[in-house]
Amino acid sequence: MKYKAKVEKALVETLAKRGICSPSIANEIAVAADSITAKEVAEEERRVIHDIRALVNVIQRKVSDQAKPYVHLTATSYDIVDTANALRYKQAVESVIIPDMMKLEKIWIELARKDRDTIQIGRTHGQFAVPMTFGFALAQYVNRWGNRILKLKESSQRLVGKLSGAVGAYNSSALFISDPEEFEKQLLSSLGLEPALISTQIVPPEPTTDLIHSVISAWGVLANFSRDMRNLQRSEIGEVGEAFTEERVGSSTMPHKKNPESFENVESLWKEFVPRMTTKYLDQVSEHQRDLTNSASQRYDAEFLMTFDFCVRRMSKVSEKLIVDRTSLKRNLDLALPSVVAEPLYLLLALAGHPDAHEYVRRLTLESSRTGKSVVDLALSDQSLQPYLKKLSAKQLEVVHDPSKYVGLAPSKVDQVLAHWEKKFKEESLW
Amino acid sequence: MKYKAKVEKALVETLAKRGICSPSIANEIAVAADSITAKEVAEEERRVIHDIRALVNVIQRKVSDQAKPYVHLTATSYDIVDTANALRYKQAVESVIIPDMMKLEKIWIELARKDRDTIQIGRTHGQFAVPMTFGFALAQYVNRWGNRILKLKESSQRLVGKLSGAVGAYNSSALFISDPEEFEKQLLSSLGLEPALISTQIVPPEPTTDLIHSVISAWGVLANFSRDMRNLQRSEIGEVGEAFTEERVGSSTMPHKKNPESFENVESLWKEFVPRMTTKYLDQVSEHQRDLTNSASQRYDAEFLMTFDFCVRRMSKVSEKLIVDRTSLKRNLDLALPSVVAEPLYLLLALAGHPDAHEYVRRLTLESSRTGKSVVDLALSDQSLQPYLKKLSAKQLEVVHDPSKYVGLAPSKVDQVLAHWEKKFKEESLW
Amino acid sequence: MKYKAKVEKALVETLAKRGICSPSIANEIAVAADSITAKEVAEEERRVIHDIRALVNVIQRKVSDQAKPYVHLTATSYDIVDTANALRYKQAVESVIIPDMMKLEKIWIELARKDRDTIQIGRTHGQFAVPMTFGFALAQYVNRWGNRILKLKESSQRLVGKLSGAVGAYNSSALFISDPEEFEKQLLSSLGLEPALISTQIVPPEPTTDLIHSVISAWGVLANFSRDMRNLQRSEIGEVGEAFTEERVGSSTMPHKKNPESFENVESLWKEFVPRMTTKYLDQVSEHQRDLTNSASQRYDAEFLMTFDFCVRRMSKVSEKLIVDRTSLKRNLDLALPSVVAEPLYLLLALAGHPDAHEYVRRLTLESSRTGKSVVDLALSDQSLQPYLKKLSAKQLEVVHDPSKYVGLAPSKVDQVLAHWEKKFKEESLW
Amino acid sequence: MKYKAKVEKALVETLAKRGICSPSIANEIAVAADSITAKEVAEEERRVIHDIRALVNVIQRKVSDQAKPYVHLTATSYDIVDTANALRYKQAVESVIIPDMMKLEKIWIELARKDRDTIQIGRTHGQFAVPMTFGFALAQYVNRWGNRILKLKESSQRLVGKLSGAVGAYNSSALFISDPEEFEKQLLSSLGLEPALISTQIVPPEPTTDLIHSVISAWGVLANFSRDMRNLQRSEIGEVGEAFTEERVGSSTMPHKKNPESFENVESLWKEFVPRMTTKYLDQVSEHQRDLTNSASQRYDAEFLMTFDFCVRRMSKVSEKLIVDRTSLKRNLDLALPSVVAEPLYLLLALAGHPDAHEYVRRLTLESSRTGKSVVDLALSDQSLQPYLKKLSAKQLEVVHDPSKYVGLAPSKVDQVLAHWEKKFKEESLW
Repeated sequence: MKYKAKVEKALVETLAKRGICSPSIANEIAVAADSITAKEVAEEERRVIHDIRALVNVIQRKVSDQAKPYVHLTATSYDIVDTANALRYKQAVESVIIPDMMKLEKIWIELARKDRDTIQIGRTHGQFAVPMTFGFALAQYVNRWGNRILKLKESSQRLVGKLSGAVGAYNSSALFISDPEEFEKQLLSSLGLEPALISTQIVPPEPTTDLIHSVISAWGVLANFSRDMRNLQRSEIGEVGEAFTEERVGSSTMPHKKNPESFENVESLWKEFVPRMTTKYLDQVSEHQRDLTNSASQRYDAEFLMTFDFCVRRMSKVSEKLIVDRTSLKRNLDLALPSVVAEPLYLLLALAGHPDAHEYVRRLTLESSRTGKSVVDLALSDQSLQPYLKKLSAKQLEVVHDPSKYVGLAPSKVDQVLAHWEKKFKEESLW
Repeated sequence: MKYKAKVEKALVETLAKRGICSPSIANEIAVAADSITAKEVAEEERRVIHDIRALVNVIQRKVSDQAKPYVHLTATSYDIVDTANALRYKQAVESVIIPDMMKLEKIWIELARKDRDTIQIGRTHGQFAVPMTFGFALAQYVNRWGNRILKLKESSQRLVGKLSGAVGAYNSSALFISDPEEFEKQLLSSLGLEPALISTQIVPPEPTTDLIHSVISAWGVLANFSRDMRNLQRSEIGEVGEAFTEERVGSSTMPHKKNPESFENVESLWKEFVPRMTTKYLDQVSEHQRDLTNSASQRYDAEFLMTFDFCVRRMSKVSEKLIVDRTSLKRNLDLALPSVVAEPLYLLLALAGHPDAHEYVRRLTLESSRTGKSVVDLALSDQSLQPYLKKLSAKQLEVVHDPSKYVGLAPSKVDQVLAHWEKKFKEESLW
Repeated sequence: MKYKAKVEKALVETLAKRGICSPSIANEIAVAADSITAKEVAEEERRVIHDIRALVNVIQRKVSDQAKPYVHLTATSYDIVDTANALRYKQAVESVIIPDMMKLEKIWIELARKDRDTIQIGRTHGQFAVPMTFGFALAQYVNRWGNRILKLKESSQRLVGKLSGAVGAYNSSALFISDPEEFEKQLLSSLGLEPALISTQIVPPEPTTDLIHSVISAWGVLANFSRDMRNLQRSEIGEVGEAFTEERVGSSTMPHKKNPESFENVESLWKEFVPRMTTKYLDQVSEHQRDLTNSASQRYDAEFLMTFDFCVRRMSKVSEKLIVDRTSLKRNLDLALPSVVAEPLYLLLALAGHPDAHEYVRRLTLESSRTGKSVVDLALSDQSLQPYLKKLSAKQLEVVHDPSKYVGLAPSKVDQVLAHWEKKFKEESLW
Repeated sequence: MKYKAKVEKALVETLAKRGICSPSIANEIAVAADSITAKEVAEEERRVIHDIRALVNVIQRKVSDQAKPYVHLTATSYDIVDTANALRYKQAVESVIIPDMMKLEKIWIELARKDRDTIQIGRTHGQFAVPMTFGFALAQYVNRWGNRILKLKESSQRLVGKLSGAVGAYNSSALFISDPEEFEKQLLSSLGLEPALISTQIVPPEPTTDLIHSVISAWGVLANFSRDMRNLQRSEIGEVGEAFTEERVGSSTMPHKKNPESFENVESLWKEFVPRMTTKYLDQVSEHQRDLTNSASQRYDAEFLMTFDFCVRRMSKVSEKLIVDRTSLKRNLDLALPSVVAEPLYLLLALAGHPDAHEYVRRLTLESSRTGKSVVDLALSDQSLQPYLKKLSAKQLEVVHDPSKYVGLAPSKVDQVLAHWEKKFKEESLW
């Protein structure tokens, strides 16, 4: 309601700039607009059953008879509502959400930097794959999150307002003002907004649709991070943990439990809000110059933004204190190494000229699980392989003998990703 | 499958550029890749139950023993799959979908231009509001559609590929190549793509999520247009119609029916695909360096693009032959005019100093519906109003006497919107 | 929180029945449970960060040291949470929602009865089809709504509770009680509930999934009714209207507007909640003996039920005062009749032996729209038709000459539907 | 198309039973209806652009001139479409899907029986909780799946057909038949269906909505099972595995990989189809006596049923050969036992009169993780505990000393659940 009153205030101030009303009348209305409370508007709304009419009535009651006609002059309800929404969503994103997202980004950057070189076994399908570093795994999130921060910023900047009247053709403002489009631009620019190129009773829905898409697709990054951390926190894996205070209770009956509650909570809220995007798409349809079937539903947009921000903050809190258990990381890596040599071995044999390397090594792993012998030992003791092994370079052989060296470019990729985003954020004045 | 083979071909050609294999081996494999058929790969897949291994096997069978090891060298399955998807979706958007969207845009531009001045009663809540022009109503779609064309173009250009191996750390390519990231860039650039800044086994999901969002939010514009046209085609309204050939049957039992089937069809398909966006969001979550729970679901992306394109084409076809019934437009306008004077009357009275103009006019309309007298007549015959009416300018009075003049800037806004988009499309080389 | 305390109370009372604690201890705890406030539990929760532990602590503080160990004894948190949810949703449905639904059903029954014989032109695809009665159109809603009332009742009765402990195997209760399943049954039956046949830490999710499905599919009936009424209220159609008080404002700038706001509001809220069903399906997945990713999301179930009930009440309010404009019904019917004769004409000709009746009549309607002559007149003046027309019975000819008679069984179907549901509701003790 | 022809055939046979046409004409049309092919109807549809008119034309071409008028007589397109859909979905469910579901149910029953006593550590939040048996975990699925089988059966039996004409008021059939409702019942009963109590041009949507809800909520059970199995198959957990043939390839570059692909596939398809339920809810809204915006979308219902059935079969195949690794089950249990004693210890102390047992034990587990000593050892060596421990029964003390005994009623619950469902399925003639 405060934001709607701000728009009414900006409207009358623009009228005064144009000489349509006097500066003192504009001032009188501006003071009244600043002083309204949600409560008194709600009371009036119960009487007239129309929210903007109620706001206008409340302001009018606070001003002189001469000022009354200039309240809301030329505006239709949704000139006020849509402009106020653009204003508050833009401010929420710029002043609250993006700063919160940047805080999390910086925490993740520090985590990635810290474990740049900590070897972790990579996992695909929940199965051991080949090694990389934990910092490399985290750098994925630094990158995806950074990308979403810019996306959200961009979509918030594309939000537009309007002052084009009941069907968008400036019917009423054209009665009094010679250049209604210029007038609209002047009013909106005083609020830091631009007008829609063309509007009906409402602004085109797509800018808001894009905004909520930016939010929900950013939320997906949090959900993925949460899922990963929950799994890495499993009792059998134990590579990370949520820090617990001594006071905190994990379970009402199992006093030993330490659950990944923050991660579960964020994933749960994400599941609650993801499908609501469908409503935003359905709300793109508004009949003719508009019907009201998007009115109640779009009131939930604010809840969308707030709950997302809650999740960002919760994720910062838990990430900040994330416990990384390097002993477990090493234990799991050691478990994996005997079999992960399969990939480099197959590739090196193939390139050394082995005619059927992938199949040969696949059968070796089956033999390994039957016999308990390691794939490397089986390979090295196979005479038929010697001609191929001889062709390998020292560095290549090293990987076969110690697959924990098989981490590719993981550490340097961390540096590269971090440098990229620090530079980018500085360009965007976000760092 | 053809696109996947293209990536395998580009891979071996890049290996040759680096001197890792000979040009003649690269050529041998390239020829084989060009010649594969989906059928033979499918057959091999039934045996090995792995789609990319099947493709590799089929290519290998077609080449010499010396060439075999260089097929798929250093690549993991999803290096091929994700790159092939980026390639084909980008080409589908650029070569098929955007040209189809531009065709529709031009048809709508012509429709808007043609009825720039045809007065139509604006409707909000399905109720008569104030007048505008039919071209103005159409210009809304020109604008929203133009905006979505650029959005889709932008998101298709942001699709990325990868050649970073099983967990994204270039583990395998680093065994053979000194600068695997440069190698990846070289390969992808030969396909007109850029690499992801960092990837796991798969590229970050967000670029595809954004692409499908662009599609589904564009579809919403078609759905809104369809809803509007269906309603304007109602028997009681009759302002537009789908052209029917003499052959076409409207109903199996009601030979007189002419149904808005194309519009209904597009709206129905939109309803089918809108909720599927939720799947794209769910697919943002892939555990650790990836799990396979997004594999089957993302195979539906192609269906998404194709069905959208079908709708764009159907909409072009029906828009091209849209029948605009100017007699009905006039009839409905005449029905509306007696009451729509309410808005300008209230505003002019308010500004002329009437202390309670909105309430006064609202009660006048209630009286009008009780007595059958027009609002204008009631107002003009009310002595107490005369002091205010005297203050009005000639142009303002004209609107009160002939509310069909009350169309604001509708016609000139059409020109402005059309000019804006023609300029924009030219800048983007789309016109 | 009150419902959770109720379950804790029932638990200790069942312990006392079994002689595990004394009646006076049970009484002490019961009194404490009745007296807790949400506020004090919330304060304790801020300390221990666990909602049920907080509740238990608050109750324990209010009882003697001897009583303390019996609070929550053998229960895990979700024994309390799931049982409390089953209890409150069942009571909400039985005591509030179904009575509200029945109220609306009765209003619709009265509306259908009142306009049992009022002829209305049927509409398919928004086009005039063949006549029926307005009561017949309403009887569709009586039937669909009645069906959903029974569905909701049935699914609320299938909600289950549990007292099977941390993983559902009665691990803890089996330490003290010889027949823990019998104990669970006894406790739940004191609350009017049955236990799940088997549970993990939580009850099987499907009963709640079914409950919310019942709600959302009932909401769809309201949405369809709303859509119909909004369209029938269009300015050009005008067959129904929402009653307006003299005080109520339709638009902030257009004092003449009377918008179908209640119908728009219900349709908008329906759009907001429909996609949330997806969350319920996603919440069916809980890892192993449960994870917490359905915890935050299922807290929205109560909002779901409440907002639905709000819509039911709003629909009753507007239906109760629905204005049916019989003049408009007649006007639209008269507009339609000249062409709707096509269906009976085609059928009668076909049966009279005309070899190509559908095609013949379809071409007649094209000629009719070209020439302005009515289909009947064209047919009657066509010599080639006479042999077929002669074969028709008097009753059949009457329909050709006066197609407003062509209403089939519409009125008697109304009686049948109303009688069916009155009987059904009586059997279910809902009438 | 075959099912639609079946309905046309049943229609003319019912006409003959009523003496409206001769048996030989009915026979002629029946033969023609049996012989149509989808191809010839599709060709005709391209000409008339109306699917049912095309079917009627094709049948008519195959019969004598006398028979022609009796094809499709009194029916509107959706009498045929909706009845054919009810028929084929009912048959698909009864003849294919439920038998497939029962096959899976029996496999799961056998699995649960086999591991009735195999102790598994229960897991909540992915953390070790308290022990149960693997058969107990599986019995949850036996129960939830059994419940969904009955739900699906019930909803398929509630599907209805119609023969009530263009707006549902029997307008056309009442022209020829004295008791059109009886006629409708007779026709439908020959197909094993019942009529809707009242219909518009289409049957009420709710029965199909319920059917698809039954399917999707059953799918959720498969998804949950898949998620569990994927997690139990993690390299670090390894309690279960998908059986691999020697031929099958797990990864194109990592020859050692054995991925839970079937489980991943089922979860992925579930994610694809879950959100489509939203479309079914949206399709409940059809304007007035129907619009066509549910036509294209409801054509996907068949894909829904087929893909679900594919998943059921795939789940049977993988469940049948599920590898249960009892060594891993034991290893994980042993890892868990030292800390899981916390729950029984706390409960027994509490009941023995310890004033703050939960808090005491929670701190013990913190000490345990600091010192590496087991919770039991810490407890037994604490002098202050002795008075409470003395009060425990022999059976209770046994659990403290050997927490692997702490499985509650897990094994007997398996028997109970299996017996319940075998009995139930026999009552329903499904066993």
